[in-house]
Amino acid sequence: MIIAALASAPGKAGISVIRLSGNDTIKTVKEYLSIEEKLHEIVYNKLYLTDFLNEGEFIDQVTVAFFKEGHSYTGEESAEIFCHGSPIIVRKILEALYLEKNIREAKPGEFTEKRFMNGKMDLVQAEAVIDLINSESDAAYISSTEQLKGGLSEELKKINAMLIELMSILELELDFADEDLDFTPNDEITGKIDIAVEVINKFIQGYQKGRIFRDGIKVALVGDVNVGKSSLMNAFLKSDRVIVTDIAGTTRDVIEEKIEVNGYLLRIFDTAGIRETEDIIENEGISRSRRIIEEADIVLHVIDSTDPSEDEYAGNVIKVYNKTDLEDVIIDENSVKISCKTGSGIEELKHKIVKNVIDEELTYRPYYISNVRHLNILKETVSQLEQAKMSIQQGQNNEVVIVDMRQALDTLGEITGETTSMDIINNIFGSFCIGK
Amino acid sequence: MIIAALASAPGKAGISVIRLSGNDTIKTVKEYLSIEEKLHEIVYNKLYLTDFLNEGEFIDQVTVAFFKEGHSYTGEESAEIFCHGSPIIVRKILEALYLEKNIREAKPGEFTEKRFMNGKMDLVQAEAVIDLINSESDAAYISSTEQLKGGLSEELKKINAMLIELMSILELELDFADEDLDFTPNDEITGKIDIAVEVINKFIQGYQKGRIFRDGIKVALVGDVNVGKSSLMNAFLKSDRVIVTDIAGTTRDVIEEKIEVNGYLLRIFDTAGIRETEDIIENEGISRSRRIIEEADIVLHVIDSTDPSEDEYAGNVIKVYNKTDLEDVIIDENSVKISCKTGSGIEELKHKIVKNVIDEELTYRPYYISNVRHLNILKETVSQLEQAKMSIQQGQNNEVVIVDMRQALDTLGEITGETTSMDIINNIFGSFCIGK
Repeated sequence: MIIAALASAPGKAGISVIRLSGNDTIKTVKEYLSIEEKLHEIVYNKLYLTDFLNEGEFIDQVTVAFFKEGHSYTGEESAEIFCHGSPIIVRKILEALYLEKNIREAKPGEFTEKRFMNGKMDLVQAEAVIDLINSESDAAYISSTEQLKGGLSEELKKINAMLIELMSILELELDFADEDLDFTPNDEITGKIDIAVEVINKFIQGYQKGRIFRDGIKVALVGDVNVGKSSLMNAFLKSDRVIVTDIAGTTRDVIEEKIEVNGYLLRIFDTAGIRETEDIIENEGISRSRRIIEEADIVLHVIDSTDPSEDEYAGNVIKVYNKTDLEDVIIDENSVKISCKTGSGIEELKHKIVKNVIDEELTYRPYYISNVRHLNILKETVSQLEQAKMSIQQGQNNEVVIVDMRQALDTLGEITGETTSMDIINNIFGSFCIGK
Repeated sequence: MIIAALASAPGKAGISVIRLSGNDTIKTVKEYLSIEEKLHEIVYNKLYLTDFLNEGEFIDQVTVAFFKEGHSYTGEESAEIFCHGSPIIVRKILEALYLEKNIREAKPGEFTEKRFMNGKMDLVQAEAVIDLINSESDAAYISSTEQLKGGLSEELKKINAMLIELMSILELELDFADEDLDFTPNDEITGKIDIAVEVINKFIQGYQKGRIFRDGIKVALVGDVNVGKSSLMNAFLKSDRVIVTDIAGTTRDVIEEKIEVNGYLLRIFDTAGIRETEDIIENEGISRSRRIIEEADIVLHVIDSTDPSEDEYAGNVIKVYNKTDLEDVIIDENSVKISCKTGSGIEELKHKIVKNVIDEELTYRPYYISNVRHLNILKETVSQLEQAKMSIQQGQNNEVVIVDMRQALDTLGEITGETTSMDIINNIFGSFCIGK
């Protein structure tokens, strides 16, 4: 079966790209082209200028390239059609192709899934493809690019090798259990398990930073009504995307805006002012605000310098004294003086937010895992390794320990795709866009 | 100077396309590629797999194709870069390129403008490119494709040839004015002018249909409040995109929805119910409705069959009796019985709309001009030809008539671009998208 889909973004443009992959792609696509006769000997990776015809009827002048099995993105015989960036032409070409018995619409992520299935990348790299496409900051770009290039896969291979070495020691001892050999002492084996756990824990701890690289820093703007939260949001954006008025309770829903600081994405949530109110909709906003504050990486407690609040917020809080053009205040190191009106202190505040949560420099480390799936698998692996260690300490025989170790290895293999169930694989690729 | 821009639609996708054109494109782009050394001898139209680097720093794995001067879209040396469809990667690649002294961002339509300037297509064909990209129906697609293939240009050449033949007769007579030759009788010349005018008028009259091919049929839904105009809109769309309520005056603004019937685009405008009201916003809606009705190709006067209105609307009107599931009515040939509730009569109504305005068959003719610029130029040409005819009839000498004829020829040449001012050309390409 050949799969086909629009691979460029939908919409009106100069060029659109339609991608096909599967056995007999070339033979099948050729029949739609006015230069069919010239194609008795295909030059791969060459752009052919040709008319695309549907049952002899002209659809568009296009360029077409063919890719050889084993030398394409998917690993299968493939083709790409470059047509005018007109949605109606894309529709006409795809409709013409789907009329073929052996061509069907590609499912989301199916081209990359084929690439994974054909062993041209592992699951971690495939996940990096979608992260790369979705990346909205330099940090997200760096993290997904490194992962795509195989940085994380290499690290995982090292952990895998450590566990396999442990397995082979245990299996060797099992094979020669009846003979009079010098067995590796138990505490040497548990020591090796500890080292593996330590390495894995470094990745688990790296998740916090990896998540920030990929998804950005969640910033909650909180404070009493009318202290200037929406004005601060506007000052961040240097625009007027948020409605600011003098009426208390204007911001009834949670508004999210994004800016980039030092390459990091800052996701700023302007929350409803928290106060007693009879307004049901506003109350709903306040309860959403509470959730936002709980999930935030950092809370900006905005305070009116002319009428400072005594409220305290829990968690990672920066006190932001606004209106300092009207009233000066004395601050500590967890506070910043700003004026949304004059713009003073805004840049300093942006950098303080980043410094507070992550190194200000954009220094990526291979153990900054960013995917919660990877995090959970690594946690599970650690717990299974600890189970193995406990079995040794309880004096269980090697068969039992080997079963524990095998489990840990299988769990670890779920990250790169070696032991991942088809359900999970489908789930991963299902989150891709169509045509990738 | 090399121009560069994103040529595929902006957004997250599998693939994005960046296009460059201008002298030294290949030499300049090569320096960004990891396979630079392998490119000492370029194979044109070949897709090279390579890393794209910015000052040695990896940006993305891309494919790149180079096009030879004279054999590219623009006619200049060109390149296309196919990268991951990630907006941040597109930004990084373009930013890296724009740092070059000899690369700048392309202006809207500039690639096609170069194609026109380099004589690879005329202005009529260039205008068809943007119409093709914007086309939203089969009719619009057919009209722009035919124009792009040169159908209209061919017809205009024929008219041009007729005028040139007339010119040569007049000039010949002028050259031999003193000699004793048999001059072409005046009424033979005015006869030839009449024929030319007749041909041009066929195109002028074709505009009405050409416009409908390109822009669709404007349908205005009118009638008293609560007769079911919004319900009819929903029935057309077979969805619930328009808010329908029982409160009179819900539809306060003009809502436009589009459907395709027999390949034609129907642009349906749901107008505010026209009635006396104190509501200022609603009154504004009503005055917009009046404008819509004036501009509509067809007016659907929706009538509640259980309480039929006596109102009459001027223009091309179909009376649409709704709620015929509740009350049957007797209708004439300009009326249709429907029920939005049961869906009966809706398909019949759609086809009646098309039949009423244009041939139901999607039969395109080369004289269906669709561009108001072309219409105005042709009207001007006719008026100048009539001026020439009048000069002849007034017994003016040939010099005067030749001036009139020359004007008509120059005016006609503005359509295809031969005599078009740079202002108008810039205006035309300025309406294109960037990257085309």
